[in-house]
Amino acid sequence: MDYSSQAIQQAVEYFSSLPSIGKKTAQRLVYHLLRQEGTFIEKFSESVLNLASDIVFCSVCFNFTEDDPCPICSSKKRKRNIICAVEQPSDIVLLEKTAEYFGLYHVLHGLIDPLGGISPDLIKLKELVSRMGDVEELILALNPTVEGEITIQYITKILKPLGVKITKIASGIPIGSSLEFTDQATLSRALEGRIEL
Amino acid sequence: MDYSSQAIQQAVEYFSSLPSIGKKTAQRLVYHLLRQEGTFIEKFSESVLNLASDIVFCSVCFNFTEDDPCPICSSKKRKRNIICAVEQPSDIVLLEKTAEYFGLYHVLHGLIDPLGGISPDLIKLKELVSRMGDVEELILALNPTVEGEITIQYITKILKPLGVKITKIASGIPIGSSLEFTDQATLSRALEGRIEL
Repeated sequence: MDYSSQAIQQAVEYFSSLPSIGKKTAQRLVYHLLRQEGTFIEKFSESVLNLASDIVFCSVCFNFTEDDPCPICSSKKRKRNIICAVEQPSDIVLLEKTAEYFGLYHVLHGLIDPLGGISPDLIKLKELVSRMGDVEELILALNPTVEGEITIQYITKILKPLGVKITKIASGIPIGSSLEFTDQATLSRALEGRIEL
Repeated sequence: MDYSSQAIQQAVEYFSSLPSIGKKTAQRLVYHLLRQEGTFIEKFSESVLNLASDIVFCSVCFNFTEDDPCPICSSKKRKRNIICAVEQPSDIVLLEKTAEYFGLYHVLHGLIDPLGGISPDLIKLKELVSRMGDVEELILALNPTVEGEITIQYITKILKPLGVKITKIASGIPIGSSLEFTDQATLSRALEGRIEL
C-alpha cells in the first residue's frame, strides 16, 4: 500500500480511474480534499451521489435530466419542428452555449462503428426515426470522424426517403486559425463547403 | 444554468473547485461519471465520504491515518531515534517511495511564512520540539523555498542548543538534468553542497 490509510488508497484509485487524471493528480486531489475545512468532503461526496439518484434519461430526447421530459423538450419557447441529433449529452451543453439554436435535441448515445461493433440498433436511432413525424429539419451535429460520417450516411439513407430535410454542421477552418495550420482533409472540406457572398 | 439539471451543475462546480481542474475538465468528469454502469457513482461517492469519516490525524506525527498512532509511528521496524520533518502528509508518500528512509516522521502542516502571516505557533512545531527526547537526528525535508529556508533556520535556532543533530535534504541538480538547464541558485547550492569522492 502506498498510503498510510486504506481510505486514502481507495479514493486515489477512484479519482485516477477518471479520464485525464493520473495517479499523481489523483493523489493531489485527495490530499487537497483532506485539507478542506468544515463539511466540504461530505458535500462533495453528496454532489456525486446525486448524479446517481437524481438523473434519468429524458424519454423523448435521451438527454440527462431530473424531470422527464427534460426542460428543453418541455419548453414552450423551443421550435418543435427542428431536431438536432448529437452523439452524447455533453454536446448539448456546447450547442446551448452558442445561444443560436432554439429547436429540440436528440442524443444518439454513440455513433455507428462497424469495426468497433456498434451497429445502428445499439444507438438511439429507432427513437430518432420515430420522432420524425412533424419535423421539418434534422440537423446532424456529429463529430467529423469516420464514425460520424458513417452515422450521417446511414441516417440520410433511411430518412431521406421520408422527405425530411437533413443537414449537417459545417467542417472547415476553425475561427482564429489559419490555412497554414489546417490539415489537408479539413481544407478540402472547407473548399467543398464554400459559401457564396 | 449551463446544464439540463441542477445535480449536474452542482457536481461540475464541486469538481472545478479542485486544484488543476477547470470548468471544462469538471464537465468531462461529471459526464464520464454519468456514463458509468452499475454502482460506480455510489462507490466513488462513498470513497470520498470515507475520507471524512475514517481519517484522523496521528497524535504523534500528525500524518493522516485511520488508526492512532499511525502505522509508521506504531511500527516496530522503524528506527525511533530519527525523525524526518515534512511540510504536509503527501510528502511522506513521496519519501516512503524512495524506500531509503526507515525512521519516523513529523508533519508540520505548513511552513513559517512571516509575510503570509504564518507564525511558528500556527504549525506543529511545539509538537516537534516535544518529541526530541531520545532523538539522535532530525532530518528537515522541506521545500527549498523562502518559507522552507525560514522554517529550517527557525528550527535550527531552537533545537541546536538542545544538542540534536539537525540535517536538511540536499539541493542540487536533479538526476537526469544538466548544468545547462539548471538555474543560478540551484547551481550555487550544488557547488556549496559538493561531496568528497
